[in-house]
Amino acid sequence: MSFSDVDLRMMAEALRLAERGRYSTSPNPRVGCVICRDGQLISQGWHQRAGEGHAEVNALAQLSDAKGATAYVTLEPCSHQGRTPPCADTLINAGVSRVVVAMEDPNPLVAGRGITRLREAGIHVDVGLMAVQAEALNPGFMRRMRGGLPWLRLKSASSIDGRTAMASGESQWITGPEARVDVQKLRAQSCAILSGVETILHDDAALTVRADSFSIEDVSAQALDGQWRQPLRVIVDSSLRTPPTAKLLAGGGEVLIATRVTDIAKHKALMAAGAKIVVIEDDGGGKVSLPALMRYLADRGCNEVLLEAGAVLAGAALRAGLVDDWFVYMAPCLMGSSGRPLVDWPMTAMQEQQAVDIIDIRAVGKDWRIQCRVPKAQHNGLEQA
Amino acid sequence: MSFSDVDLRMMAEALRLAERGRYSTSPNPRVGCVICRDGQLISQGWHQRAGEGHAEVNALAQLSDAKGATAYVTLEPCSHQGRTPPCADTLINAGVSRVVVAMEDPNPLVAGRGITRLREAGIHVDVGLMAVQAEALNPGFMRRMRGGLPWLRLKSASSIDGRTAMASGESQWITGPEARVDVQKLRAQSCAILSGVETILHDDAALTVRADSFSIEDVSAQALDGQWRQPLRVIVDSSLRTPPTAKLLAGGGEVLIATRVTDIAKHKALMAAGAKIVVIEDDGGGKVSLPALMRYLADRGCNEVLLEAGAVLAGAALRAGLVDDWFVYMAPCLMGSSGRPLVDWPMTAMQEQQAVDIIDIRAVGKDWRIQCRVPKAQHNGLEQA
Repeated sequence: MSFSDVDLRMMAEALRLAERGRYSTSPNPRVGCVICRDGQLISQGWHQRAGEGHAEVNALAQLSDAKGATAYVTLEPCSHQGRTPPCADTLINAGVSRVVVAMEDPNPLVAGRGITRLREAGIHVDVGLMAVQAEALNPGFMRRMRGGLPWLRLKSASSIDGRTAMASGESQWITGPEARVDVQKLRAQSCAILSGVETILHDDAALTVRADSFSIEDVSAQALDGQWRQPLRVIVDSSLRTPPTAKLLAGGGEVLIATRVTDIAKHKALMAAGAKIVVIEDDGGGKVSLPALMRYLADRGCNEVLLEAGAVLAGAALRAGLVDDWFVYMAPCLMGSSGRPLVDWPMTAMQEQQAVDIIDIRAVGKDWRIQCRVPKAQHNGLEQA
Repeated sequence: MSFSDVDLRMMAEALRLAERGRYSTSPNPRVGCVICRDGQLISQGWHQRAGEGHAEVNALAQLSDAKGATAYVTLEPCSHQGRTPPCADTLINAGVSRVVVAMEDPNPLVAGRGITRLREAGIHVDVGLMAVQAEALNPGFMRRMRGGLPWLRLKSASSIDGRTAMASGESQWITGPEARVDVQKLRAQSCAILSGVETILHDDAALTVRADSFSIEDVSAQALDGQWRQPLRVIVDSSLRTPPTAKLLAGGGEVLIATRVTDIAKHKALMAAGAKIVVIEDDGGGKVSLPALMRYLADRGCNEVLLEAGAVLAGAALRAGLVDDWFVYMAPCLMGSSGRPLVDWPMTAMQEQQAVDIIDIRAVGKDWRIQCRVPKAQHNGLEQA
C-alpha cells in the first residue's frame, strides 16, 4: 500500500493531536483524528477523557458536512457501544468516503471489526500508516490489551557508583529539584504509582502528583483544566504494616494496599483510614506475587504503572521480567561502596548479566536520566506481549 | 587589552596546530605557533617531539624573512637553553615586531622571563589571548609545573548498577570493542599507565598501546610516523608479587614497579626480566603511598597518567584526592548486587558523598562514556594545583 504526502501530513497531525491526551485519557488510549478534503485539513479532534467524545466524534462535531472527506485516525475506530456510540457508525453516518487508520485496535472488543464495519458500508479503508508511531502513543494500553499486563516503568535514583541509599537507608534528595519535577511528569501520566511499604515506613511518602511543584506548559495539560489527576497509589504490603496515619492516606486520591493478610479484621483500620485492600496471591515465599498484582492492575484498567521503590522491590520487579522502561536518575556523586545497591539482585556468573537497551540519556538539571528498555525476550519465562 | 579578529583567528589556528602534538610531545607541552603579516598567515609550526624544534622554531624555519611580522604562540616562548636554544632569542633574531602569547609558561625555568626578554628586545608582547584554551591543551604539564603532580585520569568500566566485576572477580569484556579502542586513545596520550599488581595477577594485562587494534585518523598521529609511543607502565606492587613471566614484561616499552620491598636481592628476578623497581614511601599502612608515587612520576616528567585498576586502587586514588578526570565506561547491563563495587570507598553518612562534575556523556559503541571531573577543593587536604 502506498500513501501520499497528504496522507503522511494528515496522519502526523493526528498523532500530534493524540499526544495531547498524555495525562488524561486512561484507561482509554490516546487517539487523534483529522478530517481532510482536497488535501486541506478541515477539522480535527482528539480524545480527552474516558466517557467523553472519542477523537473521531470530536473531529466530526465541528463540521457541518463531511461528505466525501477522508478521516485519518491513529487507532482503528471502535465498533462497540461503550459509554459513547461506536465511532465506525459515526463515520459512516457522516458520509466520509475514505478512512486511513494507523493501526488496528488490539482491544478484543474491536480487533478489526471497526475496519470491517467501515468497509461493509462501502468506505475505502487503508490501514498501517505510521503504525509504529501510533503504537508508541499507548504502550500501556497495547500491553494490557495484548498481554493482560500494564506497561511498567521503574524509577530509580542512583549515584555514579550505583548506590541508591547509604547503608543506613538514608536516601532522600540524592537527585536535584529538576529530577524530582521530571518524576512528577512520569507520575502524572501513570494510571498507578506502585511502591513498597518500606517507602511508606521510612519516608512517609505521599506519592501524589503535586500540581504546585511544577507546571507543564504543553498542550497535554489542557485536557486537565488545571487539575492534575491523581493516579491510583498502590502499596505492596505483604504483612500489612502500613500505619493508618500514613501521609498517603491523608488525601490525594485512591490508595490500594496489596497484601497477603487475609484477616478482614486486620484490614479494618486501614479501610477506615480510606485505603482499599486487595489480597493478592502468594509468590511462593509468603509475599505478594508481583506478576499477579500486575495482572490485577491491568484488569482494573491500568495502562501505565510507575514503580518507585527501593532496591528490594525494584530487584523483584526486574527479576520477574515485569519492567518495560527503567529510568535511572543518576546524581553526579559517589555514595561509596558501603551504600545500598541500585537493585537487589545477586548474580554469580557473567552470563547471568541482564542486558538492557539504553534508549535515551539526557541531562535533567545537574543529574542525568538514563532510560533503559528491558528486553522482554530475556525475561524469565514471560512472553513478549 | 583588546585583540582583533585577525588575532583571534591566528591564535585559534595556533591552538589547532598545538593539538597535533597530543600523542607525541611529552614531557614537553603541546605548543603551536603561527606567523602573520598584514592579516595573512605566512607560516606555521608546532612542537612534535621533545628534543626537536619548538613550535616557534618550526614556524620560522619555513620563512625566508619574518621581519616586522607577528608571531602567535600558545605558550610563552622559552628563555632557557635546553636541548634547543631559547625560542625568545630565535624570535628576536628573526626580527618579528609583535608576539601574541596565549599564556605564561608556568615552568619555573621560564615563568615570564621569555616575555621579559622579548620586551627588552623592543618587541611588542600581548599576553592572555585564549588562555583558557591554551591551558586545556596541557593539563598534565600545567599541573606538574605548578603542583608537582601529574594530571591523573582514572578509567573504570561499570554496569548500570555500578558494578565493575562479578563477586568472583570475573570482569573482562564488560564493555564493547569501541570502548576498548577509546581506552587505547587515552593510553596513547598518556605519559604513564598505572595499574595494580592484582590486574597483572588476575588478567595478565600487557597495558600497551596496540597499534593494530585501532587507527587514529587525525593529524595528531602524523608526528608518530605510524609508530605509537609506548607509555611508561607503572605497577603498584607493595609486596612485589609481579611474576617475572608477566606479559607486560615481554616487551612494549618500559615497566616500573613501585614497591615497599627494599631487599635488593628480591628485586633481581624482576630486573632481570626487564622491570625497573622503585621503592616508594609507606602510606602508613605498609602500602605504597599513592601521593608519593604521583610526585615521583611528576619528577620523572610524567604529565598525564592513566590509572586502569580495580575497585581498591581506584578507591585509594579517589580518596587521596589524586584523580582529576574519571572516565566511567558504562555498559548497558545489570551485573547484580553481589558484584564488586565500582570503587572501594566505604561511606556511612550522606554528607560524606564525593561530588563530581559530569563534563561529558557520550555513546561509545553500545556503551556510554561518562567523564567526570573530580573537584580538587573537596579533596582531603590536597591543594588546588
